Amino acid sequence: MISVCIIAIGDELLNGFTLDTNSQWLKKKISSTNATVVRSVIVPDQESSISNELENALMKEYDFIIMTGGLGPTHDDITKQTLSIFLELPLFADKEYLEKLRNRLKKHLKVSDNNNERTMRDKMLTSQSFVLDGFNSISNKLGTALGMIGKKNNSTIIALPGVPKELKQMFTDSIIPDYFSPSKKHSVITFKTTGITESKLYLMLEDTICKNINNFKFSFLPHFSGVNIRVLKLNNKELDQKLLDNLKNKLGSYCYGQDNDTLESIVSTLLLKNNITISLAESCTGGLLSKKLTDFSGSSKYLIGSIVAYSNQIKREFLKVPKDILDNKGAVSSDVALIMSNNIMKFFNSDMGVSITGISGPGGGTLEKPVGLYYVSIKYRKKHFFKKFIFNIKDRDTHRQIVANTALNLIRLVLENNDG
Amino acid sequence: MISVCIIAIGDELLNGFTLDTNSQWLKKKISSTNATVVRSVIVPDQESSISNELENALMKEYDFIIMTGGLGPTHDDITKQTLSIFLELPLFADKEYLEKLRNRLKKHLKVSDNNNERTMRDKMLTSQSFVLDGFNSISNKLGTALGMIGKKNNSTIIALPGVPKELKQMFTDSIIPDYFSPSKKHSVITFKTTGITESKLYLMLEDTICKNINNFKFSFLPHFSGVNIRVLKLNNKELDQKLLDNLKNKLGSYCYGQDNDTLESIVSTLLLKNNITISLAESCTGGLLSKKLTDFSGSSKYLIGSIVAYSNQIKREFLKVPKDILDNKGAVSSDVALIMSNNIMKFFNSDMGVSITGISGPGGGTLEKPVGLYYVSIKYRKKHFFKKFIFNIKDRDTHRQIVANTALNLIRLVLENNDG
Repeated sequence: MISVCIIAIGDELLNGFTLDTNSQWLKKKISSTNATVVRSVIVPDQESSISNELENALMKEYDFIIMTGGLGPTHDDITKQTLSIFLELPLFADKEYLEKLRNRLKKHLKVSDNNNERTMRDKMLTSQSFVLDGFNSISNKLGTALGMIGKKNNSTIIALPGVPKELKQMFTDSIIPDYFSPSKKHSVITFKTTGITESKLYLMLEDTICKNINNFKFSFLPHFSGVNIRVLKLNNKELDQKLLDNLKNKLGSYCYGQDNDTLESIVSTLLLKNNITISLAESCTGGLLSKKLTDFSGSSKYLIGSIVAYSNQIKREFLKVPKDILDNKGAVSSDVALIMSNNIMKFFNSDMGVSITGISGPGGGTLEKPVGLYYVSIKYRKKHFFKKFIFNIKDRDTHRQIVANTALNLIRLVLENNDG
Repeated sequence: MISVCIIAIGDELLNGFTLDTNSQWLKKKISSTNATVVRSVIVPDQESSISNELENALMKEYDFIIMTGGLGPTHDDITKQTLSIFLELPLFADKEYLEKLRNRLKKHLKVSDNNNERTMRDKMLTSQSFVLDGFNSISNKLGTALGMIGKKNNSTIIALPGVPKELKQMFTDSIIPDYFSPSKKHSVITFKTTGITESKLYLMLEDTICKNINNFKFSFLPHFSGVNIRVLKLNNKELDQKLLDNLKNKLGSYCYGQDNDTLESIVSTLLLKNNITISLAESCTGGLLSKKLTDFSGSSKYLIGSIVAYSNQIKREFLKVPKDILDNKGAVSSDVALIMSNNIMKFFNSDMGVSITGISGPGGGTLEKPVGLYYVSIKYRKKHFFKKFIFNIKDRDTHRQIVANTALNLIRLVLENNDG
């Protein structure tokens, strides 16, 4: 295995202001090569911290040590200086690159009569062209800071700027082709499930996992819309179709798709494939379900339209929910959900009508109807499907996402199991 | 300085599958306390890697070592076991927590006659309740994995689950109040702008920035909904009110808010404050604007409702757009946008009617009406406001977000500058 350690340098990556997207990008990029990122660390713009990490990484003999950030022109960019001191190698300007840089920037810079200013600028350009003795330069086409690559003991050290677009261009064009080879290292598949907890899933699959633990790595990745199960073949072979079929079989209808599938993409595909039109009447989700169902180009082929019936007035006037039912049962009730789904289907003349009504909070709950309660109702041609849920989640946004997802899942189950 | 080292554990955080948002969240949270994150590292689900990092962190004598992930019920969750071996402390079940867990899960679990399954489940719950001898438990209200906190040498070790919502709840409710104190280390303010590019903003503020560069750090943070300008006082003093007023003045109506403000929160506040009701007719955004305007509890006070008029049929039948206008001008046209905003206001009996129609792509564009074209129309009592935009962005989702945001910004400007 070719091992990679990423060292991202920058105070702003540690104080929560800036998300370290460079490391994430590098990990993804490297995962499609013959190498593996085994460690990723963020340190401040501080000589001792950088040296410490470097020492640690060299001791561990990672094949590649990729350092990002700290190559810019300001006082807190100290990566090259630190490397120079730590490795006891002098820095000198790459004359060819410096010349290119001067030419490239000539048209952007004003001709200044101020000698002092001109000297300052050239000093800056020179420092941006520094490279360690014995290291190779990595040209920066989009910015000024020169990157570099070189050997120390058993490791190859790479230094790249922290500006994402510069880093990406340099890594893609100058590092990947020369130092990494493309390879489908891992044969991997992700099963997407919903409507079941991680621990129940684990119990369901424990037998199969235990039998295969030496050849496969199974990971359970829970998030609010469900649990993803990733199956990874540990050695360089393809996944075993028999095992995959076995897992799929055990998961049954909890599994809605694989890899890049989402609930909305699956429902969208089902609607398109079967030529089914749909219309929605949303209350508490406020348009979120409609938004999800129109995430795809061509969604006008199945979504006729929606009414976000946020106020009772709209429920009465446009969805024709009788006033006495609204008054007696309340807007969040099975009766109202049922009438909404039936009427939206009828009025919009679609094959399926879906309604959602609920209380996402944080306000609006009562003892009888707590925050988190919601109803999903589906009218599909002549049939009717209905579910009541309570998810007591404090965060309004998460609750609405969960509500929209359970509605999507109910639509999926109806479409998979009914021909209308 | 109170130092914090974060160790995030998980293969999926190293192979590029999952972005480590937990560390980012912790950094932000900690930056508002008296402590500072000085190092952040990601390691795989592997005993030797976790032990190595722990050893390293203990050697560096960080005040806090926060470990996230690896507390779940599956075989690759090994954080507690690794800590137990490394610190030579036995694990035992926290009986009180286990009892709570059993009670909490009772109603969700089916009474199973299968003894084997019941034993398995209880084994799982017990392992989820494990805590190290001498450590304190951190209750997990949203999931099952018990967290823990304890001392080793000069460091306090905290272990939290990797599920973001569980981690956040536990850190916010159980760690912050007991172990950190709030402190405004940096005096910092973020101005939120929209409708103007980063380079134009820079030119606008260049004078002020140059004059203040020794005492303040100015950062321009562009993203699709606008550019944030962060002003940070470099030494431990308060921000200069005169400077802030000067900046705000220069930014004018490009600046829609500060710090945690969003366009939707600003518009929502304006609607509530002025007792104005609104209704929406969305086409290409498919419900996204409605969703954004219902992100807040109490939004039913201003949002009457919306129609997602995705098909021409709905535009004709429910928004009464005349067939000949739809046929001659097309659904994406100023005429249709205008009629939609007028009619939704009238039919839903609101103070303001807003319509959006456009082409988010990737399909559906023509030479005359390219992908990226859209119209926003606002009818506010007797007045009418209207704008045509073209944002040619390849990604459908980003385009729809931008469209919804420009509509929100137009609503804001109308509300700020008109009394109807």
